[in-house]
Amino acid sequence: MTQNQEIAKGLEGVRFTESKLTFINGQEGILTHLGIPIQEWAEQSTFEELSLALLLRRLPIAQELAEFDAELKANREIPEELTQLIRQMPQDANPMQALRTAVSYLGLLDQQSEDITPEARRAISVRLIAQLATIIAAQMRAANGKDIVAPRQDLSHAGNFLYMINGTEPTPEQARLFDIALILHVDHGMNASTFTAIATSSTLSDMYSAMTSAIGALKGPLHGGANEQVMVMLEEVGSPDKAADYINAKLDNKEKIMGVGHRVYKNFDPRSRVLRDYAAMVADKEGKSTNYQILETIEKTVVDRIGDKGIYPNVDFYSGTVYTDLGIEKEYFTPIFALARISGWCASVMEYSEDNRLLRPSSVYTGDTDAHYLNLEDRS
Amino acid sequence: MTQNQEIAKGLEGVRFTESKLTFINGQEGILTHLGIPIQEWAEQSTFEELSLALLLRRLPIAQELAEFDAELKANREIPEELTQLIRQMPQDANPMQALRTAVSYLGLLDQQSEDITPEARRAISVRLIAQLATIIAAQMRAANGKDIVAPRQDLSHAGNFLYMINGTEPTPEQARLFDIALILHVDHGMNASTFTAIATSSTLSDMYSAMTSAIGALKGPLHGGANEQVMVMLEEVGSPDKAADYINAKLDNKEKIMGVGHRVYKNFDPRSRVLRDYAAMVADKEGKSTNYQILETIEKTVVDRIGDKGIYPNVDFYSGTVYTDLGIEKEYFTPIFALARISGWCASVMEYSEDNRLLRPSSVYTGDTDAHYLNLEDRS
Ligand SMILES: CC(C)(COP(=O)(O)OP(=O)(O)OC[C@H]1O[C@@H](n2cnc3c(N)ncnc32)[C@H](O)[C@@H]1OP(=O)(O)O)[C@@H](O)C(=O)NCCC(=O)NCCS
Ligand SMILES: CC(C)(COP(=O)(O)OP(=O)(O)OC[C@H]1O[C@@H](n2cnc3c(N)ncnc32)[C@H](O)[C@@H]1OP(=O)(O)O)[C@@H](O)C(=O)NCCC(=O)NCCS
Repeated sequence: MTQNQEIAKGLEGVRFTESKLTFINGQEGILTHLGIPIQEWAEQSTFEELSLALLLRRLPIAQELAEFDAELKANREIPEELTQLIRQMPQDANPMQALRTAVSYLGLLDQQSEDITPEARRAISVRLIAQLATIIAAQMRAANGKDIVAPRQDLSHAGNFLYMINGTEPTPEQARLFDIALILHVDHGMNASTFTAIATSSTLSDMYSAMTSAIGALKGPLHGGANEQVMVMLEEVGSPDKAADYINAKLDNKEKIMGVGHRVYKNFDPRSRVLRDYAAMVADKEGKSTNYQILETIEKTVVDRIGDKGIYPNVDFYSGTVYTDLGIEKEYFTPIFALARISGWCASVMEYSEDNRLLRPSSVYTGDTDAHYLNLEDRS
Repeated sequence: MTQNQEIAKGLEGVRFTESKLTFINGQEGILTHLGIPIQEWAEQSTFEELSLALLLRRLPIAQELAEFDAELKANREIPEELTQLIRQMPQDANPMQALRTAVSYLGLLDQQSEDITPEARRAISVRLIAQLATIIAAQMRAANGKDIVAPRQDLSHAGNFLYMINGTEPTPEQARLFDIALILHVDHGMNASTFTAIATSSTLSDMYSAMTSAIGALKGPLHGGANEQVMVMLEEVGSPDKAADYINAKLDNKEKIMGVGHRVYKNFDPRSRVLRDYAAMVADKEGKSTNYQILETIEKTVVDRIGDKGIYPNVDFYSGTVYTDLGIEKEYFTPIFALARISGWCASVMEYSEDNRLLRPSSVYTGDTDAHYLNLEDRS
């Protein structure tokens, strides 16, 4: 029975809720959080402030921000049982499988996890935002056979993370750069991982269930992962003089270039501009690195050949080199994405839960009707 | 900016894919898998066969079923690291948080987990179906301070599970009854947990990510959990002579009675009939138990008072007492739901992945536009 019913494939264009968090206009290259352009957040704010603003759905006042910051700092330590589990994980474990498992275990250990009141959700969000940094840093260290570095309370969220992964304090410039990279990734509307978090939470399940679902969704190569591929490409190209030929050959072959093009932004990705300006500034000051020169040539070649199709560098084009410069291996780019996006996930789940409705779409049945069970010997 | 755009709340009525697995006609009380009525599956088939049939999307032939059964049996053991983790979990851990964590860790330990080819997905599904029983039984035993019982290869899936939780072999009748209860819960169309599994997997993420998402969604009280509430009600009622007054008082108070009514079945739930017939048979043979007498009175009172609104017992009305009789505590009813539904989840994810499309619906932006970042001292 094939029914004649319309199917919204991928749920594309289906609106299922209202949100006050993020606005995107792909044609004009606009991304705002709470109506404020992403460029302003990147230039003037911090990861901590944007996280709190999304949870509150307004700019916090000074005292609220100071309290939130203190709460984040006070919650950086993870339970000893979890550190133990991270140490026991196989060194070659997939970092996102490890992160999903760690967050799930954190929920198991959290006495408040079953509480889904707004107050509890908020307190759990703070712990999740704070502790995701500690978890990911611990996993990176353990996977490299290094001692796990305990968090410090005197550094910013971004600075403390870099401290935990490298074991040395970052420069103020490094901490700020990483802060900006986090800001750029905090939220991006109803993306697949945010949607999955909401779907899970819509059964009135707990925050940790919603977050493990989101991590599982982000893990998929159609969602996270493009910046890792950009680094693979830079390694393949090897030197700036080979970049144009490499790209031309790919385009002749109708292959996709990683880090360019976007489903939504058809003109430019406002996040990529922020990172490009930063990269250009570093190049001005310290001379052009090999990676920077390769990226420059790739961008020029791509825009010359297919810029008229609306294909420009996206945020992943630059973020990989930024992370690499900060000491982060490419296998950890997707966990770093989660490190930033956790705030958007928590804020989105909290917003949806204020007017919760179980998510239960339908499918069109196209199978047999009127069939009957057959004994094994009667089947062919 | 409030946009004038239609919102499909809860995605109700939105069809996003085709499926050949399950058909439901709520008005007529029809539930079929592969076109075959649930009653026939319950009477003539086994959990193993229905699981394989959904994975294949057709009835298996004898040899396929024998091979699948052997594969399930050979895969019952879980890795020692996972048993270790289960032993270390706090005894009062929420069983669904524990299950979610265990399945996530199983994925971490599975060398094949990153392979998303259909062959790998099928092999992983077999392991997940087989090992979920071992995980849940181990958790039940550990939470009760008992030794974990290793699986046996000479028992059916249902029989082996009862053996692992009780430490003694079940009677053939008990094993068959539990088998039927599993069959009744294997799949139920595009329910919230199946949908969440598909959403996660639609980013091309792995099977374990999809399953941890599904477990997280099933955990919510709007999805799993009603049969646990029925047992709470039976305990509250206490004795059959108090049942009618209890129900009448609740209905006078406009309170919901647990285990009756269904969003889809407005006449009767075909799954509840199967369990009711079974319960009646046991009552005929062994005399009416207290729980049976209470349920009988509740059903009569509810149907008399609000049966004309289409409110009849649903599958959860009877399943709780069945599980209790088999030695399962009510805190484990939702994990038992997962034990059955895992087959439906795996089959649904595999079907969707054959024609995968990233799930990315939209939201309607209702927040500020044209706002700007303000310095802390300029906020009020
Ligand atoms: C993101 C992406 C899937 C968007 O795809 P899309 O919306 O389907 O783009 P379109 O199909 O509208 O692309 C229009 C044209 O540009 C081409 N194109 C799009 N992205 C391209 C890329 N990365 N490299 C080369 N050509 C590309 C398409 O082939 C198409 O060409 P055609 O008109 O000759 O057929 C795609 O750009 C891509 O795969 N990019 C690389 C991966 C990546 O960086 N993803 C991260 C995004 S944050
Ligand atoms: C499952 C459930 C949510 C379906 O709700 P629904 O589709 O919204 O049902 P409706 O709103 O169409 O119900 C029609 C009427 O029956 C009443 N009703 C529905 N379920 C009822 C219940 N369990 N007890 C008492 N009255 C009930 C409604 O209050 C409504 O009364 P009204 O017309 O006077 O307002 C609901 O029946 C329920 O909460 N059941 C108990 C929980 C349960 O067992 N869930 C597991 C389902 S597998």
